[in-house]
Amino acid sequence: VLPKPAIAQGLPEIKWRMASSFPKSLPALFGGADFLCQRVAALTDNRFQIRPFAGGEIVPPLAVLDAVQNGTVELGHSTPYYYVGKDPTFGFGSTMPFGFNERQQMAWMRQGGGLELHNELLKGYNTLGFPAGNTGAQMGGWFRKEIKTPEDLKGLKMRIAGIAGNVLAKLGGVPQQIGGSDIYPALEKGTIDATEWVGPYDDEKLGFYKVAKYYYYPGWWEGNAMIWTNVNRDKWNELPPSYQAALETASYDAYSWVLSKYDTENPLALRRLVANGAQLRPFSREILQAAYKASFEVYDEFAAKNALFKKTYESWKAFRDTEYLWFQVAEHSFESFVYSQRTAEVRAKK
Amino acid sequence: VLPKPAIAQGLPEIKWRMASSFPKSLPALFGGADFLCQRVAALTDNRFQIRPFAGGEIVPPLAVLDAVQNGTVELGHSTPYYYVGKDPTFGFGSTMPFGFNERQQMAWMRQGGGLELHNELLKGYNTLGFPAGNTGAQMGGWFRKEIKTPEDLKGLKMRIAGIAGNVLAKLGGVPQQIGGSDIYPALEKGTIDATEWVGPYDDEKLGFYKVAKYYYYPGWWEGNAMIWTNVNRDKWNELPPSYQAALETASYDAYSWVLSKYDTENPLALRRLVANGAQLRPFSREILQAAYKASFEVYDEFAAKNALFKKTYESWKAFRDTEYLWFQVAEHSFESFVYSQRTAEVRAKK
Repeated sequence: VLPKPAIAQGLPEIKWRMASSFPKSLPALFGGADFLCQRVAALTDNRFQIRPFAGGEIVPPLAVLDAVQNGTVELGHSTPYYYVGKDPTFGFGSTMPFGFNERQQMAWMRQGGGLELHNELLKGYNTLGFPAGNTGAQMGGWFRKEIKTPEDLKGLKMRIAGIAGNVLAKLGGVPQQIGGSDIYPALEKGTIDATEWVGPYDDEKLGFYKVAKYYYYPGWWEGNAMIWTNVNRDKWNELPPSYQAALETASYDAYSWVLSKYDTENPLALRRLVANGAQLRPFSREILQAAYKASFEVYDEFAAKNALFKKTYESWKAFRDTEYLWFQVAEHSFESFVYSQRTAEVRAKK
Repeated sequence: VLPKPAIAQGLPEIKWRMASSFPKSLPALFGGADFLCQRVAALTDNRFQIRPFAGGEIVPPLAVLDAVQNGTVELGHSTPYYYVGKDPTFGFGSTMPFGFNERQQMAWMRQGGGLELHNELLKGYNTLGFPAGNTGAQMGGWFRKEIKTPEDLKGLKMRIAGIAGNVLAKLGGVPQQIGGSDIYPALEKGTIDATEWVGPYDDEKLGFYKVAKYYYYPGWWEGNAMIWTNVNRDKWNELPPSYQAALETASYDAYSWVLSKYDTENPLALRRLVANGAQLRPFSREILQAAYKASFEVYDEFAAKNALFKKTYESWKAFRDTEYLWFQVAEHSFESFVYSQRTAEVRAKK
């Protein structure tokens, strides 16, 4: 054991601000930002201090990327598909309709070239990023009326995020971009007919079940949704290498923390929601197939106009095809069996 | 930016040895140990250096826990069910037959009390641990003959790990504990009739398809399998807090790295194996149901004799029931739909 004061003396005390897109009322999402900042502090003997700010505290929830790009804050905590208005290629960073489940998304990012492609996009905004959370597969959201066929989507005004808005529009719906806290009043007044947010744990906190009782699944546009740490490139380059490592490693640790938080809380919230009158409904196969067709048409349209979208889409699509092959074999057959056994046991008890 | 030499000067240079249970020939498992050690070095400006040793280099693969307990090495890289001979409660740390998928296992560990229970067990061996990798759902392994009914398991000599050995014995099979490198010759000579290891990526490297062509799925005894970092408690207590944080955070980062490596490589290996003559076979529902029943009988028997097993089992069972409810809704319905679409597309192309 030999002290090495020469190197350690060089490690500076740094204070950064992190702008999150998410409100403090959502303990998995904003809690993930908090967890990450605490980890970085613990890794650096409290010398690299990052303070997380909730959506709206420094900048609006959907303006986090801009704030990081122009250096208003050193880093952000957000999800890329909030920025599909700038470039649809951002969608791949979060999730794409009928795309990956959570494990497939992470495998593509870490080992399949996805991270490099996403950082190629982010470079144009003077930022870089790391995965820092995931919600898992989301619910299809809350509807004031039952939706049985693709016809029922025509004219439907729905708050929906990312590329899924383009798909809904192709099916005749009217997608709306509305920030988290403004959704409930819009749904209550009937300004919108439906909304999706995340899943039981978050949706319960936002109270949607009180004004739209039909709760559809699955969220075919979000087989997973990835949260990211985004860092301003100039600020990143000023960091000592061990602080860069702390930020990156803590992001992956926070990723696991957020996901496990959702996986633990969602079932408990789902039980409470159903007890409070939520009516669970699966989307019909007819709706899923119409949306599936529309999704791939949307992708082809973007790919024809946008070279980076095309390049990213081709990587994504090839990886998806391979992953589906494998996950069908061991994972899906294991789960199909154990879930069917559970259903049989629950029925037998009744 | 203010330097703080007083604290940083106190950070010592520390060199540790890590004994892994896994051979260098398996780049996801041993690669995970390597990745973890590199991360810890990067986080500490190379002051905390851990050198990973493959199974057999310092101690035999299945003696890693003992080596950590008695301080031969400071830490280990292994999977708990290798030690079910000491106490069946170790099984919960890796996986249990008909138990969790990967996400459910991690949720139970990080947010459902599993980690605390596992560390209660480890305390009796003067160690503590962190999740540091996962294989995902495994395959059911390689059989020299087709297995169609539970009758076909009677007298079957099979290399199988963990509590699954007890289940196989209850079904009339003859479980064998054999280290990785000794399996192939045993299978070739017919000393055993079947073996399981992990999944396509690792199994291909060990060559089993050359001597047993029937490749069954799913590995009902391993819906996931968790790899751990295990640390000697006395050594842990000597670490500065930031080095403790580095080891813990790097373990979760390595966890994600290992899992994404498997998820990326398994489908490619599966294609090659099938091209080389492997015959994919699903276990029949009759076999799965017999094994399911036998598994819960085994759990009840252990619970009747072992208080910590009982306490851990009750936590595990309650968490499992809740997780299955939720995963059936959004995750499983999303995956069932997209996989069925892929199958239809592949058929349409033929």
